Amino acid sequence: MQIAIIGLGKTGTDMARRLRRCACEIIAFDKNSQITRRLAAEEGIIAVNDLKELVRKLLPPRVVWSMVPGGECTEDLFKELTKVLDADDIIIDGSNTHYVDSQRYGSELAGHGIEYIDVGMSGSVQGLNQGYCLMVGGNKKTVQMISPALRILAPAADRGWAHVGTHGAGHFTKMIQDTIENGMMQVIAEGFALLHNKEDFEFDLGQLAELWCNGSTISSQLLDGAAKLLKDGQDLQNIVPFVCDPSDDRWATFQSLDQKKMAPILSMALQQRFNSQDDESYVNKLLAMMHNKANNQSIG
Amino acid sequence: MQIAIIGLGKTGTDMARRLRRCACEIIAFDKNSQITRRLAAEEGIIAVNDLKELVRKLLPPRVVWSMVPGGECTEDLFKELTKVLDADDIIIDGSNTHYVDSQRYGSELAGHGIEYIDVGMSGSVQGLNQGYCLMVGGNKKTVQMISPALRILAPAADRGWAHVGTHGAGHFTKMIQDTIENGMMQVIAEGFALLHNKEDFEFDLGQLAELWCNGSTISSQLLDGAAKLLKDGQDLQNIVPFVCDPSDDRWATFQSLDQKKMAPILSMALQQRFNSQDDESYVNKLLAMMHNKANNQSIG
Repeated sequence: MQIAIIGLGKTGTDMARRLRRCACEIIAFDKNSQITRRLAAEEGIIAVNDLKELVRKLLPPRVVWSMVPGGECTEDLFKELTKVLDADDIIIDGSNTHYVDSQRYGSELAGHGIEYIDVGMSGSVQGLNQGYCLMVGGNKKTVQMISPALRILAPAADRGWAHVGTHGAGHFTKMIQDTIENGMMQVIAEGFALLHNKEDFEFDLGQLAELWCNGSTISSQLLDGAAKLLKDGQDLQNIVPFVCDPSDDRWATFQSLDQKKMAPILSMALQQRFNSQDDESYVNKLLAMMHNKANNQSIG
Repeated sequence: MQIAIIGLGKTGTDMARRLRRCACEIIAFDKNSQITRRLAAEEGIIAVNDLKELVRKLLPPRVVWSMVPGGECTEDLFKELTKVLDADDIIIDGSNTHYVDSQRYGSELAGHGIEYIDVGMSGSVQGLNQGYCLMVGGNKKTVQMISPALRILAPAADRGWAHVGTHGAGHFTKMIQDTIENGMMQVIAEGFALLHNKEDFEFDLGQLAELWCNGSTISSQLLDGAAKLLKDGQDLQNIVPFVCDPSDDRWATFQSLDQKKMAPILSMALQQRFNSQDDESYVNKLLAMMHNKANNQSIG
């Protein structure tokens, strides 16, 4: 199997290594040519300097896996790719693209005869060695054509990857996966904070997280991660309490608004992140001012 | 090892079986003598008819594991036990007792020279075959004395059980474990509802849950359970949307109020359960009435 990977960040690089180690021929392109040259030296991939060279190295129908960031980078790359690829070639989009854009890419690329596959990828931290969970959207025939690569990238040939629906379905399910993940993390964090704040018991949070990973109903990969972190220290003195908000979370809340169906906890987990980012909260200032005024008046 | 178990519900019965199969001598008492007699026939446990007989069958220092429900039943049982047990005997409380009561039991029983151990137990559905996750509170020496039983009941001798602190620590941590579990379940449910409501993709929810159990960051025992349920059907036509609210959840919210520390998602997951129980919500009626009135006036 021959496959091109564009965008050699952490996940792109690890994917290239994992595929290469199963004897795939990998053509790699990144704006930073140092990365591709190092990967060529280390793993025997073929580094190329531009998209034209990339296309020349591939036998049709070509398979190009994009790992550049979603949004503008992906948009620009796909425009360039349509100029150099031929009909029946395949573009796989492994970024966190909004599913509405994925649906549009599917139609636009089909206009050039190019097949589009959107792949939501989870588990990238340990993906190189343990494989990626892959949610695949697109038409069945194309998914079957690229399945040899999916079987290598997944944790096992027969599990951890699935064709979940048409164009956009892969990125839609990844969005939901991410918002569930963020919600779970919030729940775990609140629970452990209640333990931490209950000072009279002097709980060992690392011990508890590890304990719960063995046979309790909350055993999970996220708790496992928390256990590893908490074992290194539970005072968190050097951690700034600022939590980022991935765009997936906002999209999931939009989805709830769009559907007019409740997702109160997922939405509130997102609000909680905004709150963490807002040291100078105007809401809290205004509330404080109003309460101070009310207190002064009742005293006065 | 010799151990008495009082209260042979699902978990008490499974515990008795698991201990018995590792050659423990089990003395069992339940108000329903049919249960203990059946268990005697099936597993070779010793069924007794009252607490006096139970005490006579045990060699001191006696170990009595209570699996009656927390609250009044436990309170009453401990009063009876103090009349028949001797100093240095041990009572283990495997119920979901509120940790403040567990702390009080620790002191009160100590007044009679009786050792008290509170054990939070998780994983009771599959406990018989896979073992229980055990959070143990009490003094170190007593925990060591009962550790042979803990090593059998846990998933493995050296993991899945831990001495987490003094009297009450076992039940406090179980309360937190339960509220994390309930929060996680709410998050999973909201995520899958967003998938279900997005009708144009026609997602197979069972497929997705199973997929995510293989290598995704949200893989967890709860998702595994959801996968099994959703594979049997995802329309849920015969399910009444009424969700119970275990007392642990309310206690965890009290804990947050007591600490004056935020736990917004855990608290809201509980509120969401109240909401599910309230078909005739007075809040919603009142809001509907106010909005109807406002609309009529603006039209008029």
